[in-house]
Amino acid sequence: MFVIGSGALHLKGEISEKADVVEVEIKKFPDGEKYVRVLGEGEEAIVVQSMYHPQDEHLIEVLLLGDALREKGFRRLKLVVPYLAYSRQDRVTKEGEPVSIRAIMRMLGLYYDELYVFDIHNPKTLGFFPGKAYNISPARVIAEYFREKLGEGIVMAPDKGALERARSVAEILGLEYSHFEKKRISPTEVQMTPVDVDVKGKNVLIVDDIISTGGTMIKAANLLRELGAEKIFVVATHGVFAEGAIERVSKAVDELAVTNTIPTPVSKISIVPEILNV
Amino acid sequence: MFVIGSGALHLKGEISEKADVVEVEIKKFPDGEKYVRVLGEGEEAIVVQSMYHPQDEHLIEVLLLGDALREKGFRRLKLVVPYLAYSRQDRVTKEGEPVSIRAIMRMLGLYYDELYVFDIHNPKTLGFFPGKAYNISPARVIAEYFREKLGEGIVMAPDKGALERARSVAEILGLEYSHFEKKRISPTEVQMTPVDVDVKGKNVLIVDDIISTGGTMIKAANLLRELGAEKIFVVATHGVFAEGAIERVSKAVDELAVTNTIPTPVSKISIVPEILNV
Repeated sequence: MFVIGSGALHLKGEISEKADVVEVEIKKFPDGEKYVRVLGEGEEAIVVQSMYHPQDEHLIEVLLLGDALREKGFRRLKLVVPYLAYSRQDRVTKEGEPVSIRAIMRMLGLYYDELYVFDIHNPKTLGFFPGKAYNISPARVIAEYFREKLGEGIVMAPDKGALERARSVAEILGLEYSHFEKKRISPTEVQMTPVDVDVKGKNVLIVDDIISTGGTMIKAANLLRELGAEKIFVVATHGVFAEGAIERVSKAVDELAVTNTIPTPVSKISIVPEILNV
Repeated sequence: MFVIGSGALHLKGEISEKADVVEVEIKKFPDGEKYVRVLGEGEEAIVVQSMYHPQDEHLIEVLLLGDALREKGFRRLKLVVPYLAYSRQDRVTKEGEPVSIRAIMRMLGLYYDELYVFDIHNPKTLGFFPGKAYNISPARVIAEYFREKLGEGIVMAPDKGALERARSVAEILGLEYSHFEKKRISPTEVQMTPVDVDVKGKNVLIVDDIISTGGTMIKAANLLRELGAEKIFVVATHGVFAEGAIERVSKAVDELAVTNTIPTPVSKISIVPEILNV
């Protein structure tokens, strides 16, 4: 039985076509406090809540939903988080900083037994969650979306760190994959080189977890174009787009797509099939 | 050593006149995520954070500050909350609701050993906090602010539930106190009557915990005026004012004042002396 938070309303229609969705009342009091009410009974609930902006409101809402469900007698609570806020704040870079994602994980653990996060920035941070925690890969839905468009193309990661992500998509499609190597050539400039791969005359799909400014993607696309690539596609799991980024990336490539972990104008790939598997 | 959250910046100057305040860096990333950094060392920290709107951001910030302080090696963390959000959501009124303040208390307990809340709506809810939790009465600072203005006046609670609050203030000043009795005379109208007290020719101070619309306070003030009261003062701990409420209440009484648990144009009474006692 699914419970849909206000950060996942854009997924509600598709989920309810295939599964039971409990009605919830979610509103704000005039002073800004959230009010939630769950109109359903059961043993197990799967709460779906994506945590893009306003992320702090979405986080507190999930806490209140957890309390309401426990109060109602639900015994097993799973939490599915398409996009998890604070997941990039996963280490202390400067002394005095928190490991923000640790605090968030501990908070979610107050009410939820199991956590499912889509393409989490650093899978090791799942260890901060007190219960069982899983990373869900969007590789399958991304691969299917691009299967025909890409044809006998190549899947590329924008850097070595993202290689695993490119590999997953490439293996589903039976295609070649590689990554760019980044080299700092001046304090402000980074040179990118595709490693061990010939893109000439081939379609290329660049895969990343998050696009924000889109700067890296544009740079990679321009380079591929120079190297004679045919069509260039860019995909990411989470479209945390900065102002104007969608337009800038779209102009530089043949197609830009992200999944609907965050609702954006280019969220063309649905993760709902994976949510229904939880 | 004090750490001041962004909901308590209006108290920082006064606190730092009398006590050590650690520098903190608090900002937002472009996507809306909070970033905090604590620039200080020590064994014990007292975090001060008021949780008016945007209350959810203030809550998450306090969680991140707690993580940063633990990471820095602070062993004992106290949290002082001038205004605690969600404290009025203290029971299930309709089936399916959470006890929101319980969820909030549990969350604060993840990092803090002791909790100090100013004039909490329902003191019993302090029991949801896993560590030691205290209610701080603002009676002393309120009484001192009104001592001269009130003279040989009377302290009134707007209803029986607030009587204890009026009594505390009255006892400090050595004055008479009472309350109004509310009687529903139609589905939309409530009649108020002062109980066992003659206000004729006397100054009256009405004391409550929260003013939001101010409707009750205006009604009480008009009634006191009819009964021949001299000057009428209205005070509350927390000014959670609805749009236009400050103007409406101010027009109906001789003076409206609240404490600075929430910064408002009429937050004339400082709670900082009580914070310094924690």
